[in-house]
Amino acid sequence: MRRDSMSKLMMKKQEILDAFYFRHATKEYDANKKISEEDFHLILEAGRLSPSSYGLEPWKFLIVQSPEFRERLAKIASGAEVKLKGASHFIIILARVDMRYDSEYIINHMKTIRKMPDNMIEMVLKGFKEFQETKWKMLDNERTLFDWASKQTYIALANMMTAAAQMGIDSTPIEGFHFDDVHALLESEGLLENGTYKPSVMAAFGYRKEDPQRPKTRKTLNEIVQWI
Amino acid sequence: MRRDSMSKLMMKKQEILDAFYFRHATKEYDANKKISEEDFHLILEAGRLSPSSYGLEPWKFLIVQSPEFRERLAKIASGAEVKLKGASHFIIILARVDMRYDSEYIINHMKTIRKMPDNMIEMVLKGFKEFQETKWKMLDNERTLFDWASKQTYIALANMMTAAAQMGIDSTPIEGFHFDDVHALLESEGLLENGTYKPSVMAAFGYRKEDPQRPKTRKTLNEIVQWI
Repeated sequence: MRRDSMSKLMMKKQEILDAFYFRHATKEYDANKKISEEDFHLILEAGRLSPSSYGLEPWKFLIVQSPEFRERLAKIASGAEVKLKGASHFIIILARVDMRYDSEYIINHMKTIRKMPDNMIEMVLKGFKEFQETKWKMLDNERTLFDWASKQTYIALANMMTAAAQMGIDSTPIEGFHFDDVHALLESEGLLENGTYKPSVMAAFGYRKEDPQRPKTRKTLNEIVQWI
Repeated sequence: MRRDSMSKLMMKKQEILDAFYFRHATKEYDANKKISEEDFHLILEAGRLSPSSYGLEPWKFLIVQSPEFRERLAKIASGAEVKLKGASHFIIILARVDMRYDSEYIINHMKTIRKMPDNMIEMVLKGFKEFQETKWKMLDNERTLFDWASKQTYIALANMMTAAAQMGIDSTPIEGFHFDDVHALLESEGLLENGTYKPSVMAAFGYRKEDPQRPKTRKTLNEIVQWI
């Protein structure tokens, strides 16, 4: 490899690492700084292109920009209150409820989005049934099935925050809201498509008002990695 | 902004997007191509530096490199079988079980890793109790609490795969294994620290044997995004 392309590669690796250090759970956002349309589009693409179990994309992204709706949300989602004031963009990630192997959504998704031929769908569904029923016992109750769909949304969440950080954009993942209250608000506004979705997790995006007061803390690699 | 730094920024954005297109669930790996130590270290760093609820890092990464152990795992984890043969590195991500707000782990983590003063811990734990008990009702059963810890590991999973893709390294996320069987194998080998951890998800890393046979399929942004 030529020396200049090698140093370019090293720079790129350093940039990847830098972005993970740059990212922190931003407490307060500068309300005067807005993410450009182009940059936010890339953040959404990072979510959209994320992998999910069986490629089922069991998610939807509500982008909460209306000041009125943000105020209503802030009243019932205490963990999001400060972020909702200054964040350039605010996303509620929803996860699907109808994720049983034989649901209409799943069969339709395999047909129309994944373009699988019928005999392939039949084969995949057989394995999928075993996966949900036997391997993971996730059909025992609705919560467990929803949590599995919700896990997939955390992949999209992570990729959106990482893409943002690589562009110098701050973010905050938010689980700290009262699930039932947020669920009720979204349902009353017809945002859950008649019970198809439930709120999974939220994320604010924008530009920090100030640098974090406390340094990033993490265990060392030695504490979390074991080689077998 | 000067023209050359602007075009550098545009190139960087294109590279971010390209990596999300490059990544796909790799079916089979080229057993002759190994990830360099430096690159794999960066993948682990992407996992280590990932955010998690309350910064609790409820994860551990088992790197399965021993051919003997890979064979034993392949026998009980059908979804991982082909990947275990050729993947340069194979990770089993574990999630913690002891994630109740008042667990010894959590209090100790806040003290020694996050370096919180005692009065701050007291305050945080009060909110944390409400978060788990009232806001998300995740203490109702053990599975729900574990699934919440498991969700956090999907953030680390996503960041590891994305960092890999940005370095031209392929990966495969793997949920398709029999949970009880893998749990039993890991426990019998003393890898779960006396019930502290359970398997959450797996991931193979390496270099593809061939390009994907089917193009990446995804819904359009219009289908998954709603502006409020």
